[in-house]
Amino acid sequence: MGILRGLDGLTGFEQAVVWGVLLIAVGGLVYAAVLRQSILAQDTGNDEMRKYWGFIRTGAQAYLGRQFRTIVVALVILAIALFASVLIIPASEQSKEVWGANATMAVAIGRSLAFLLGASFSYAVGAIGMNIAVQGNIRVAAASRISYNGAMQTAYRSGTVTGMLCVGLGLLGGTIIFMFYGKSAPDALLGFGFGGSLIALFMRVGGGIYTKAADVGADLVGKVEANLPEDDPRNAAVIADLVGDNVGDCAGMAADVFESFEVTIVSALILGIVLGTANAASNGGRFDFRYIIFPLIVRGIGVIASLIGNIFVRTDETRRNAMSAMNRGFYTSAAIAVVGFLGVTLYYMHDAQGNIEWAPFLATAAGIVLCIALDKVTEYFTSTHFAPVQETSRASQTGAATNILSGLALGYESSVYAVLVIAVAIFASIFFFGGARYSANTFVAVLYGVSLTGIGMLTLTGNTISMDAFGPIADNANGIGELAGLEKSARDVMDDLDSVGNTTKAITKGVAIGSAVIAAVSLYGSFFTDVQAVQRQVFNIAAGAVDKRLLTGINLANPQIFVGLLIGGALPFLFSALTIRAVSRAAGQIVNEVRRQLRIPGVMEGKVTPDYARAVGISTTAAQRELITLGVIAVLVPIIVGFLLDVEALGGFLAGTILSGQLLAVFMSNAGGAWDNAKKYIEEGNFGGKGSEPHKAAVVGDTVGDPLKDTSGPALNPLLKVINLISLLIAPIIVQVRKGQPPSVPLLVVMVVLIVVVAFTIRRSNQQTTGLQEQEMFRAQPPVGRQV
Amino acid sequence: MGILRGLDGLTGFEQAVVWGVLLIAVGGLVYAAVLRQSILAQDTGNDEMRKYWGFIRTGAQAYLGRQFRTIVVALVILAIALFASVLIIPASEQSKEVWGANATMAVAIGRSLAFLLGASFSYAVGAIGMNIAVQGNIRVAAASRISYNGAMQTAYRSGTVTGMLCVGLGLLGGTIIFMFYGKSAPDALLGFGFGGSLIALFMRVGGGIYTKAADVGADLVGKVEANLPEDDPRNAAVIADLVGDNVGDCAGMAADVFESFEVTIVSALILGIVLGTANAASNGGRFDFRYIIFPLIVRGIGVIASLIGNIFVRTDETRRNAMSAMNRGFYTSAAIAVVGFLGVTLYYMHDAQGNIEWAPFLATAAGIVLCIALDKVTEYFTSTHFAPVQETSRASQTGAATNILSGLALGYESSVYAVLVIAVAIFASIFFFGGARYSANTFVAVLYGVSLTGIGMLTLTGNTISMDAFGPIADNANGIGELAGLEKSARDVMDDLDSVGNTTKAITKGVAIGSAVIAAVSLYGSFFTDVQAVQRQVFNIAAGAVDKRLLTGINLANPQIFVGLLIGGALPFLFSALTIRAVSRAAGQIVNEVRRQLRIPGVMEGKVTPDYARAVGISTTAAQRELITLGVIAVLVPIIVGFLLDVEALGGFLAGTILSGQLLAVFMSNAGGAWDNAKKYIEEGNFGGKGSEPHKAAVVGDTVGDPLKDTSGPALNPLLKVINLISLLIAPIIVQVRKGQPPSVPLLVVMVVLIVVVAFTIRRSNQQTTGLQEQEMFRAQPPVGRQV
Repeated sequence: MGILRGLDGLTGFEQAVVWGVLLIAVGGLVYAAVLRQSILAQDTGNDEMRKYWGFIRTGAQAYLGRQFRTIVVALVILAIALFASVLIIPASEQSKEVWGANATMAVAIGRSLAFLLGASFSYAVGAIGMNIAVQGNIRVAAASRISYNGAMQTAYRSGTVTGMLCVGLGLLGGTIIFMFYGKSAPDALLGFGFGGSLIALFMRVGGGIYTKAADVGADLVGKVEANLPEDDPRNAAVIADLVGDNVGDCAGMAADVFESFEVTIVSALILGIVLGTANAASNGGRFDFRYIIFPLIVRGIGVIASLIGNIFVRTDETRRNAMSAMNRGFYTSAAIAVVGFLGVTLYYMHDAQGNIEWAPFLATAAGIVLCIALDKVTEYFTSTHFAPVQETSRASQTGAATNILSGLALGYESSVYAVLVIAVAIFASIFFFGGARYSANTFVAVLYGVSLTGIGMLTLTGNTISMDAFGPIADNANGIGELAGLEKSARDVMDDLDSVGNTTKAITKGVAIGSAVIAAVSLYGSFFTDVQAVQRQVFNIAAGAVDKRLLTGINLANPQIFVGLLIGGALPFLFSALTIRAVSRAAGQIVNEVRRQLRIPGVMEGKVTPDYARAVGISTTAAQRELITLGVIAVLVPIIVGFLLDVEALGGFLAGTILSGQLLAVFMSNAGGAWDNAKKYIEEGNFGGKGSEPHKAAVVGDTVGDPLKDTSGPALNPLLKVINLISLLIAPIIVQVRKGQPPSVPLLVVMVVLIVVVAFTIRRSNQQTTGLQEQEMFRAQPPVGRQV
Repeated sequence: MGILRGLDGLTGFEQAVVWGVLLIAVGGLVYAAVLRQSILAQDTGNDEMRKYWGFIRTGAQAYLGRQFRTIVVALVILAIALFASVLIIPASEQSKEVWGANATMAVAIGRSLAFLLGASFSYAVGAIGMNIAVQGNIRVAAASRISYNGAMQTAYRSGTVTGMLCVGLGLLGGTIIFMFYGKSAPDALLGFGFGGSLIALFMRVGGGIYTKAADVGADLVGKVEANLPEDDPRNAAVIADLVGDNVGDCAGMAADVFESFEVTIVSALILGIVLGTANAASNGGRFDFRYIIFPLIVRGIGVIASLIGNIFVRTDETRRNAMSAMNRGFYTSAAIAVVGFLGVTLYYMHDAQGNIEWAPFLATAAGIVLCIALDKVTEYFTSTHFAPVQETSRASQTGAATNILSGLALGYESSVYAVLVIAVAIFASIFFFGGARYSANTFVAVLYGVSLTGIGMLTLTGNTISMDAFGPIADNANGIGELAGLEKSARDVMDDLDSVGNTTKAITKGVAIGSAVIAAVSLYGSFFTDVQAVQRQVFNIAAGAVDKRLLTGINLANPQIFVGLLIGGALPFLFSALTIRAVSRAAGQIVNEVRRQLRIPGVMEGKVTPDYARAVGISTTAAQRELITLGVIAVLVPIIVGFLLDVEALGGFLAGTILSGQLLAVFMSNAGGAWDNAKKYIEEGNFGGKGSEPHKAAVVGDTVGDPLKDTSGPALNPLLKVINLISLLIAPIIVQVRKGQPPSVPLLVVMVVLIVVVAFTIRRSNQQTTGLQEQEMFRAQPPVGRQV
């Protein structure tokens, strides 16, 4: 028994596969590093460009530094708590089997170290990804002076660095943990997932608040009051706005998708271990490793497919079609991936009797179909080429109110289709895994199928992130072009790339939400297996024995569980209310700062450079301060619900959160995207064009949609995963402490204290709204007649 | 055994109680009739007033006539289907016990006749209530020329007619069915509930679309384009707008609350029968009627309490405080009711050992607390006296977008508190019914408790409806005053009553939604008992025997059930999208009509009376046409889900709908109310007052909120109840047809056809949007610069 206990019992072929997957992960990282070097080697244009770029770079660094300081404290505390948690929850049977006498220490180290690993990987993806985006933008601007294809490829490949980093680290983490822990991996995997999710929540929420505070603040004063154009150097918040695109759309999005990537492999491995154990009987008594090896290979194939697809992302100076170039890359990758899955299935996925097991392949392939379907649904509802957005534009003719109503209806409708697509994917999994082969363990098998669907869906994460990061990079390049006053031919190239970037950014949001939901649903499956294992230990129930104290389901007929469902459903609504207010508050501060600076003599005339760093500082501080309330709620609410209502109601709570979180997230994302593009559709010359009354009405819709689509909606993705992972981690403790009894008096006291903490946190944050608005927004009243 | 089989086995006291309750029900109706006569006897003012009033009356009649023709076809078809349904589902064991050989016919008649009874009661409450409101408004206008108290009392008492009609008919229906059917009542009760719900859905949705189409349409042309004041006689839609208040706020609301009133007694009786059977053992083998008699008496006490409270609704010419008068009436009724419940508990609710059973009392009293708590939450979030609305007003200073965002955040937050209040009420029921007494049947007992909470909550329905109907009556009186040019002193009185009416109308919405949710949750309880009974018949499982084919819960761990939950959660979002669009579409038609008439020579000068009837006709037709799509969806979706995914997933579907329906309904209702009052708060002179830029921004919010709070949000209440009742009615058929097997090919074909019908219906309705907007809204573009 070596230190790599995960390799014990694997066949020679399987061992080779695991090492091969590890190699692919490292290869992805090496590719990212090489790509990064080649981008850094590119030209950075003239001094004027570098001057403004310097501000952006400094601002971005300042944000990351501050963000790091905020989270490092939370990380240390939680790592210690996870290490100490073995004092309450003893090591599982599987851990004892793998580690013998060292089981407790192995679990303690696994949980805490894996947590830190997940957190640092997630942070690295966000931070390095944002870094390369900031390096890329000036080089895109410089390249656009020479060639369209060059500029497009620079932007896309800067995104690919992040994409490869994401898939490389995600695969590396999962594989390493499996290699060290083998069948005892679930504990460490949960820690790994939780670390990643928590950082993603911080990056997503903090980034979302930052970017929209800077954006809305800059627009409210710049465009509406002072009549400055977009990206004007006299606007003190212009750099904060550009930094915000990187912070929100790059760092936040990358960390969020990385987390889904991680969480789906975590749940696939956990459920795969359960299935492997259950299948041992029909496998000649040997633990069936296929359910663990398969997702790892699939992920490896995905990395290769993304790499190859990358080559096809090119266009030429006559066609200048960035969108079709990226789509070509995507579909090529998808085709390669499916062929790869098929090969693995034919060669490896057969049982002891030699029959090929099709279900895992089908579920994984369904994931790719799901990814494409969600892209299409999002595109249909948010692109100017289809009826919904055009209808919202048309509704702007009768004013802002009808524009808003039309967007609301569109958003609600789109969430229905997104849910249906996901429901069909889950239902498909029921069919695939409904056969006799899995009849002893149908639920677990189906949920394993759902996690494979998630893995399939995120196979092309490399492409997805490249396309998404393309958005802020092109946007920033365009900003630098405006600030530095580049020539028209270059600006034309960047304008086109910017507009394509808006589309790709919007489309990938659908996948981000969908994958978060799928990840949450498959974590939901791990919840049962995890809780049951602890219950067997706590209540001394022999493996295989049936006992009514075991959690076999989440029974909604039980009113207590229904209460859990109701509270869970309310959580995303609370979160949305708080994030909307957080943006308003932070934007109010930016408005004041920009106004103050515009009054400084020389600034309005363009002779004095505004103090960009101050606006950056305000956004950074505000975002981090708001983060704390939201973080506290995300962590404490599941704990309170779990201890008050017990584990089964906690399961109901999770279902409620997934349901309403998914509906709200899609609604917000698509309504926001549609309002944005309805404005653009009018700007293209329809219904009166730019400056007309319908355009003003559409601007209102766009401003309403901004925090919904870039802050509140995206914040719900990591929320879903964080509360699922926290619940998974605390469920054993709840079982241990509550032992299925009604709550004891000391427990009730602790809970009441926690509820007071949460209520106080929410109240304080609401009071701040009033306070700040009284004090700052009040002065922020623009001159009458200038209003939109 | 007489024809009144429900009286068999009752003690003499119990029989007397039942007859007493029946007498109280009749007494309530008589009181309503007497009150109506006394109102009709009042003065109707001058000829000018009667002229405009004549238009309103005719318009209201036209609407009711058309509404009736739309629903009568659906009613006949469904009544036949319910009669025929006994061919698929044989009579229950209890029916056979009560009716012997005649069981099948008794059930067939019960289902279909009770359905028609429920439908006609619901229609009668809406229609007669609207009628008396239309009679009342002119008399309020006339009375306001003489005394404040007189006008206030006329308005309130006109509402009381509807309130008494509602409680009288609700109690009468439930009692009669119980008297005839006794223990075999569930079948007939479900039919009764379904009839009421279906009509309520039609009245609520049709009324909601009508009222907002007329309101928004009248405002868009009248106020925004032509600069006409509110209620100007030159606006062709002014009468339609006034009729709309009666149609939506009076008929719609009354039918909706009547339905909750009905449904809570239906579920209390069904669950009471189960508990009574279960408790027979400890009751010396005798069926325990207490659980059936108790809710009936409680309802009877409620009627008396409302009647007495009514006396206290008075003010005088010095104080002129309508709000505190109504509150005094409400709290008096509440106190009387609680004392009454206590008396009944002490005298009647003890077991064979003489121990008093407190749980039913506690659950009922909790309902009254819940009603008051929901009132307070709604008031806090929608009244100009508290921070939330003031904050939304303040946000209007930075434009329409920040006003909208502030309202969205407020709405989302308020829905969280409303859910928590309901969750606490359900949780309280778990405590009350958690004792040893109910241990054999805990879930059923708790859900029975939830239905008692619903009954408690609706105890003061008489007061609630009086307060609610006060709103449209005062509003219409004010409109007649404006149209007929009444003197200032009378207008002042009516202005004040109108503004109080806005508040009472907003507050009672919280109760309407809350009661719908509680009613839906308690129906959820009946779902299990109902399905299990059929399963025992179909699968031949002896009473009391345990069998894994029996539906013992809704297990969310089963992915198929989770799919049901997801689809259920999406339904209210779909419904909202469709209702918002329906209003936009219908409003577009009104805009065109008003414009057309304004161009007729003489109309703008006030020399020619516009053709009010045409605008009324357009609203009426549009509302009825839109209704059909929504009705088809409400009825077909549960059927499709049930047959495709089976009964357990149907249970998950119901939970999903209740959860997201509740959250959305509260959000829409409160956000809409807050936007409305944020505008009023500015009109009171804050932040620049009427006509300022912030006011214009607030008008946008108000217009967005209008269809949300008066159409989409309220439409969700009956939706929740209708889909629960349909599910209850079809569940036995599903069990019978599916027999727990995977779907057969013919079934799949039928389902696919139904899905196509639903999809086609939705698509057609969306196409109409585009078509109509292209053709009508397009021309509806107001002159540039006039826009809000």
